[in-house]
Amino acid sequence: MPDIPGGPEFLDSPDTLGGIGESATLARIFPRLPQSEAALLGPGDDCAVIAAPDGRFVVTTDMMIHGPDFRLAWSSGYDLGWKAAASNLSDVAAMGATPTALVVAIAAPAESPVALLEQIADGLREACAELAPGCGVVGGDLSVSATLTLAVTAFGSLDFRAAVLRSGARVGDQLAVSGELGLAARGLALLFAEGVDVTGQPDAAAAAALGVEHSAALAAQLRPSPPIADGVLAARAGATAMLDLSDGLAIDARRVAAASFVRLDFDSTLLGPDPHAALAGGEDHALLASFPADAELPGGFRRIGRVLAGAGLSVDGFAFDEALGWDPYRGWNGRVD
Amino acid sequence: MPDIPGGPEFLDSPDTLGGIGESATLARIFPRLPQSEAALLGPGDDCAVIAAPDGRFVVTTDMMIHGPDFRLAWSSGYDLGWKAAASNLSDVAAMGATPTALVVAIAAPAESPVALLEQIADGLREACAELAPGCGVVGGDLSVSATLTLAVTAFGSLDFRAAVLRSGARVGDQLAVSGELGLAARGLALLFAEGVDVTGQPDAAAAAALGVEHSAALAAQLRPSPPIADGVLAARAGATAMLDLSDGLAIDARRVAAASFVRLDFDSTLLGPDPHAALAGGEDHALLASFPADAELPGGFRRIGRVLAGAGLSVDGFAFDEALGWDPYRGWNGRVD
Repeated sequence: MPDIPGGPEFLDSPDTLGGIGESATLARIFPRLPQSEAALLGPGDDCAVIAAPDGRFVVTTDMMIHGPDFRLAWSSGYDLGWKAAASNLSDVAAMGATPTALVVAIAAPAESPVALLEQIADGLREACAELAPGCGVVGGDLSVSATLTLAVTAFGSLDFRAAVLRSGARVGDQLAVSGELGLAARGLALLFAEGVDVTGQPDAAAAAALGVEHSAALAAQLRPSPPIADGVLAARAGATAMLDLSDGLAIDARRVAAASFVRLDFDSTLLGPDPHAALAGGEDHALLASFPADAELPGGFRRIGRVLAGAGLSVDGFAFDEALGWDPYRGWNGRVD
Repeated sequence: MPDIPGGPEFLDSPDTLGGIGESATLARIFPRLPQSEAALLGPGDDCAVIAAPDGRFVVTTDMMIHGPDFRLAWSSGYDLGWKAAASNLSDVAAMGATPTALVVAIAAPAESPVALLEQIADGLREACAELAPGCGVVGGDLSVSATLTLAVTAFGSLDFRAAVLRSGARVGDQLAVSGELGLAARGLALLFAEGVDVTGQPDAAAAAALGVEHSAALAAQLRPSPPIADGVLAARAGATAMLDLSDGLAIDARRVAAASFVRLDFDSTLLGPDPHAALAGGEDHALLASFPADAELPGGFRRIGRVLAGAGLSVDGFAFDEALGWDPYRGWNGRVD
């Protein structure tokens, strides 16, 4: 559940970023960050040096912005650090790679409590420990900004395997997913509907009350636990295509279909109690993958459909053309409170 | 000189990010981005895959934030893209590495012209072409934010050499620099003093007029050209320590002294016409390096002093303890206009 910003954890330290400055803030954050086992040289010089044993590395980057991507009334610093790590680790996993390292750039208002930054570091650390042991933070940047912003770049190793691309799905393959569909979106919908005060503003107490009954949905939205280890398992099991579901199953599956020149057909009985919600989704950070018809599905993967000749999507064989999902420039109302 | 935001280059296209959305904006930006020769897989999947021929890569990340780091009245999108690339490339060069790739995350207000993003892409491309041929953009993220923010992460290859750290300066070494000292800070001071309107607000026309007389100083601030190739030359010439001068010579040289357990002594006659300005600096993106006493200085390096036993800095043998330089949380007045 979200901690309450300004709550007890901040009272121990009145320090703000602007009050103690960049160097003192970094000195408080550094010891809390996770170590990377791949770091040949960690933070402190102009660059870190990271091992890439097979002569390649995978890289992805993703920002989280106060307003469109999170609200401080709903997310603690710990949640933010956790989610920033988890969402990037999921992109690494979707290549069939093992996450090795992160760099983290944070921009925050000068009046932000240093404790907020410490919480972010704690969230980064515990997400790496739980989701991708051995992965850690090898560098970063700390800036002042009117808008709290986290920019994480994540690296991984393919360990001499081929990367699993979006373009490899073949007619006859099984279509499978690991992770929850639609639950993170349900958490967000609940927060906007009921995690607000009487004027409609996001409200920490309302969100905390909501979390008692809907803890799984709120956790999926605020502190997601993508099936990172299943990425490598899928690659080893012969996955022909894979991607991280961030914009929703329908949008992301269309990307696989387009890149692979195939049609993806979902079995509605395998999409859970609300197939439409599963297709809409958003921020699932589940892994969608195709496997050869005779492959045994590894880890947490379960079958949800099959790969057919054609283009686009279908459900139970019927074409599915509905536009669902999230575009940040169209979906944000401009508010941050 | 800075182009004028809202000037002729924007009139050809009234499109805004919010108006055309993320996918259409990316489609406009992608063709303008520089290609990386190290990219085994470029943008378009969950991750890029980058070559690391010697089994290692160097990585650095740095943000540029509207307000503390730039003003749109003074910097065009082209300038921003150029400087975001240049400042990160300089950190790669300071390890003795060859830049191979960038990932670029941009967050911008929904009402931003798409042409601003196109200019940023153009600046990234031309900075790579001029400063680090073969380096290119392999991935990124586009988000909406109230505050225009660029977060660049840069990668490089050490090509089987050891990294040049801050900690390797030895007593008896020559101290040398490649690049301009104090010029970028002079450009910034000129902009704040004279690149403003009668009310003190940053003003594009005033800055353009200023650029006629002070083009070198304004270019050093707005569109810097760090001596990227000199990083590898320094490594090959046996540099014992090196770093990118971003916070000013005095602050950054103290970091080398502290990491190497030595004193750095500057010869005031070698610091240009205004040694104090050279020591204060800020955003020089010059390379400071130490070399063995008998080494021939490579590329654009020139001697500015020597490495002595002791700690901290001295000038002509006299201890120099003055606090100079830039802390973003203390130096920004909170204004963006």
